[in-house]
Amino acid sequence: MQKELTKKNERVEEVFHLFIKHIQGFLEEAKLNHEEYTNFVNWADRLGRTGEFPLYADVFLETHVLKAMYTEKPGTQPSLLGPYFIEGSPLIEAEPGKPLVLTQRPDEAGEVLYFKGNVSNVDGKKLANTRVEMWHNDASRKYSAFDSDAPRYNFRGHFYTDENGDFEVKSIVPLPYSIPTDGPTGEFLAYTDQHPMRPAHLHLMFEAEGHETLITQVFFEGDEYLETDVADGVRLDLLTNLIDKGDHKEASLNFVMRTL
Amino acid sequence: MQKELTKKNERVEEVFHLFIKHIQGFLEEAKLNHEEYTNFVNWADRLGRTGEFPLYADVFLETHVLKAMYTEKPGTQPSLLGPYFIEGSPLIEAEPGKPLVLTQRPDEAGEVLYFKGNVSNVDGKKLANTRVEMWHNDASRKYSAFDSDAPRYNFRGHFYTDENGDFEVKSIVPLPYSIPTDGPTGEFLAYTDQHPMRPAHLHLMFEAEGHETLITQVFFEGDEYLETDVADGVRLDLLTNLIDKGDHKEASLNFVMRTL
Repeated sequence: MQKELTKKNERVEEVFHLFIKHIQGFLEEAKLNHEEYTNFVNWADRLGRTGEFPLYADVFLETHVLKAMYTEKPGTQPSLLGPYFIEGSPLIEAEPGKPLVLTQRPDEAGEVLYFKGNVSNVDGKKLANTRVEMWHNDASRKYSAFDSDAPRYNFRGHFYTDENGDFEVKSIVPLPYSIPTDGPTGEFLAYTDQHPMRPAHLHLMFEAEGHETLITQVFFEGDEYLETDVADGVRLDLLTNLIDKGDHKEASLNFVMRTL
Repeated sequence: MQKELTKKNERVEEVFHLFIKHIQGFLEEAKLNHEEYTNFVNWADRLGRTGEFPLYADVFLETHVLKAMYTEKPGTQPSLLGPYFIEGSPLIEAEPGKPLVLTQRPDEAGEVLYFKGNVSNVDGKKLANTRVEMWHNDASRKYSAFDSDAPRYNFRGHFYTDENGDFEVKSIVPLPYSIPTDGPTGEFLAYTDQHPMRPAHLHLMFEAEGHETLITQVFFEGDEYLETDVADGVRLDLLTNLIDKGDHKEASLNFVMRTL
């Protein structure tokens, strides 16, 4: 709501009223007694003070917003942005005749991945010069700028599709990982009997003039957490195969953007 | 949920599942787009990080918990504990022949109030030796230990009813006040077009063996905010009259506790 702070805004008012209405619905159905109410408020207070609310929201709520908006629409399904995106990633430029290489250390651990994609729109037009932002975790299963020891922009970068809407980028195969379990979000998982794992995924964001920005993820067939992703981010059209090429893996997926 | 952290607890699991279900109901009905979702998460993150969540919950949610539990039950209706209760208030003892005097500074500003009460139970029995905790704001409309400059336990204390369940305490008349408006809770109020005022009230908590602890408030007829209390804490059986006695005011109310 930050942007609109200076004036009353009917849409914000509507959203806040609906928020209170549904929270009251929760309280009525749960029939919390006063002690349970106090315990619940204490948990939510810890969730807030530790700064874990965005994690909690992105894991348990964001996917529902996206499903409600997009399930019926043509084009590639979005998936959650998640709490690990940061602004300011470096521009990745290719040396002639070589693939793009996502920002990484010279001695980077992990299995080499060549990932190919094509970007078009719902009218079938190839989208040249589309800005593609990509980020994923490292072989320690952690994200740079968060819990990894890697430099801030490790496995983070952006680049542009070629004249056919194609791109190919060299990186490593991302790994499944556990969301943080040592705070209030972890308490929630323990109580609701859910594991904290997300399947391995690449994060991708596509920006092209005249098109709706597409924020999505790519998952790999055979991952043991596809069905039970704690953040429920998997969609059928976001699945690809990891093809074994001996010393590296290959994977590809086509992306379809919605026109504005 | 803090107490039960060491083991899975079916009730906590049920409450968390209902919480997520109703939050998802909110997201579905509000049809937030992704930008609105992000703005909402940012607001809730600020609410959490500033430590305002308990304020928000006590103002907008606690009263619904209490109404759901108690509206149909005999005995004095509870009202919200609120965010301004603190533990450890001093025991107030009377000098012979004098009324109890709630902790205050010698030169305390405000209009003197003598408040009388009687405590009985739903079976009509007078409850002698009931522990009564009382707290309220000062003439600056602020609470000690929070935003007032007063000492930590100013206008906070506890005492015991006499052999007839009666008590009388000298204090000052509390004043209507505004909940904090400079943070995320204030944003919420501004957007939902609500004033931030609570009518003047005394906070009271009663504890007697074999009885359910009664946490409630006392309000005064004629207060301009009775109908529009931001925290919706007013109940008909919590209203009393301020009687003008020249150099002081008097008020009284009887309280009925529920047996366990």
